[in-house]
Amino acid sequence: MTKESQQPTPEVLQSLIWDNDALSLLDQRLLPEETVYLRLTTTQDVWEAIRELKVRGAPAIGIAAAYGVVLGVQDFIGSTADWAAEAERQAEHLATSRPTAVNLFWALDRMKARARALAEQGVASAEATQALLDEAKQIHAEDEATNRLIGEHALTLFKDGMGVLTHCNAGGLATAKYGTALAPFYLALEQGIQLKVFADETRPVLQGARLTAFELQRAGVDVTLICDNMAGHVMSKGWIQAVIVGTDRVAANGDVANKIGTYSVAVLAKAHGIPFYVACPLSTIDLSTPTGADIPIEERHSDEVTVGFGKRTAPEGIAVYNPAFDVTPAELVTAIVTEKGIVTAPYEENLRKLFD
Amino acid sequence: MTKESQQPTPEVLQSLIWDNDALSLLDQRLLPEETVYLRLTTTQDVWEAIRELKVRGAPAIGIAAAYGVVLGVQDFIGSTADWAAEAERQAEHLATSRPTAVNLFWALDRMKARARALAEQGVASAEATQALLDEAKQIHAEDEATNRLIGEHALTLFKDGMGVLTHCNAGGLATAKYGTALAPFYLALEQGIQLKVFADETRPVLQGARLTAFELQRAGVDVTLICDNMAGHVMSKGWIQAVIVGTDRVAANGDVANKIGTYSVAVLAKAHGIPFYVACPLSTIDLSTPTGADIPIEERHSDEVTVGFGKRTAPEGIAVYNPAFDVTPAELVTAIVTEKGIVTAPYEENLRKLFD
Repeated sequence: MTKESQQPTPEVLQSLIWDNDALSLLDQRLLPEETVYLRLTTTQDVWEAIRELKVRGAPAIGIAAAYGVVLGVQDFIGSTADWAAEAERQAEHLATSRPTAVNLFWALDRMKARARALAEQGVASAEATQALLDEAKQIHAEDEATNRLIGEHALTLFKDGMGVLTHCNAGGLATAKYGTALAPFYLALEQGIQLKVFADETRPVLQGARLTAFELQRAGVDVTLICDNMAGHVMSKGWIQAVIVGTDRVAANGDVANKIGTYSVAVLAKAHGIPFYVACPLSTIDLSTPTGADIPIEERHSDEVTVGFGKRTAPEGIAVYNPAFDVTPAELVTAIVTEKGIVTAPYEENLRKLFD
Repeated sequence: MTKESQQPTPEVLQSLIWDNDALSLLDQRLLPEETVYLRLTTTQDVWEAIRELKVRGAPAIGIAAAYGVVLGVQDFIGSTADWAAEAERQAEHLATSRPTAVNLFWALDRMKARARALAEQGVASAEATQALLDEAKQIHAEDEATNRLIGEHALTLFKDGMGVLTHCNAGGLATAKYGTALAPFYLALEQGIQLKVFADETRPVLQGARLTAFELQRAGVDVTLICDNMAGHVMSKGWIQAVIVGTDRVAANGDVANKIGTYSVAVLAKAHGIPFYVACPLSTIDLSTPTGADIPIEERHSDEVTVGFGKRTAPEGIAVYNPAFDVTPAELVTAIVTEKGIVTAPYEENLRKLFD
């Protein structure tokens, strides 16, 4: 693994780039201070990058893992060893990098299925490597296409001159490109539609400040950073005409789990008569989860709040409540924007139709 | 000036203590990591402490300045020099330490008036020093008495077992003792009433984490620290039965200016059917300001948001909106708690009655 301090492509920032037999991966831990692409050349490099949170965001992790399988197989080009057994072994290993990331397993299962099919056809290692690379690139491209469709649908909700507030980072850094909630901002830029974006910094881990502000600024989007507790105030000034956020899981009834603070933003939006939109791919809608009450809320370590950035900002031993997510009830959600279009209430009925 | 790392009194933390011909002052810049009392023995020590924000909070600054005048005069005990002229000169000097602090001028004017009266009586320096010390102690004691009354009135609004949320620091550290919004928590402790306090960390300067959590923990109050964006979530869980905050200025119509984020908390409280209380002395109610729209909102440097934790957490050059305060409209305020009692709507009429 080597480091490049220059970004390979200068336009919209991409978290993952396949380039000359290696995976270039933006090290998200160093953002926003340093934009460093890591050149990953082995499966173990990818395993470590996922494990150590150099790459984050469920779709981005899945894509990285798919390329990781390719890296494991390409060493066998010209060798007579069993590349297919190696592909299987490497995929199993990659699956241990983040045991709870659903997209990781999904992407690896797809790569394993492809490898098995190729092995059954008696394909040699060189041809298999190319075919597996094509599959990984396909996963990558599908994610980008999905996000672009989400962005196109979401953009129909916005008008030139609007102020739009977002929370956390559902952006290109978490996906192949564009992101989900941030996708309409990139498409607006392409189409010359002026939007004024406000990014909540999103305590405690500051994904809004470190990632959203960073990637939108870099792309040339008009973005203003605020602290989470300023959202109500900027709404009261009439600066916000819409809110759009991503989500970690949508329940069958339309309840939305997302980064802590999303619920407060939704309540504030309703109090100010501002529409509250949620952007996500169909894969995030979980019809097997009846309501938000069925979504477990992960509680994280108090250190994120008390010594989050290398400096102690609260007394030793203080009691801290640090939930990573909250649930926004469906009645506060104006619409859910997917790659198949925009869904409104009644969600129970209309979300189900998406899967027919 | 010398440093003591031990707190002179171990119970409720006090920001200012007159002790053996010197002013012991808690250095608030070092909180919560270090609890250091500075022993100030000269007027210049006090001037620097105010200037360098070692002491903050309008009442605490006024009290420190009053003791600063005493320190300037006590050197003249036994001397035939003109102590009264020196008192006047030192007071003028202290007034330059923080040019916008209203309580500072008020306290110094009161000390100068006392010095002039003593000089007219031909009092010698030893007697004058004692009389001025009595005056400073009186200012100190009056602030404490006011806060205790506010706390007693506020405590009638709370019941054993309640969860109460506060924002920023309107505590003992900003005043002689008890604070305003935090006063009922100290009195509840004295009376054995169990309250569960939730303290918003209060970005960007983190007064909630650094000061409120610190002083309540130290006193033995049951306090849990949360990030600002968690307030709505903890309300939705049913953990909060009341909100109480301080204020920088109350307008004649009951609109309340306070630390940024207070407005969001008030909107969230209303959405959850939770009463929202404001605690302040009469001196904070400004009948000459008709409404909140007439209160200017100070905008502060973006560094507070982007490098506030001692490390850059947002990209260089990012646009930031950083208002220090917001205004909560009177219709969101359930009651205003003063040393003269609890005021409810209609505020226009009922606030005026306090001054009759």
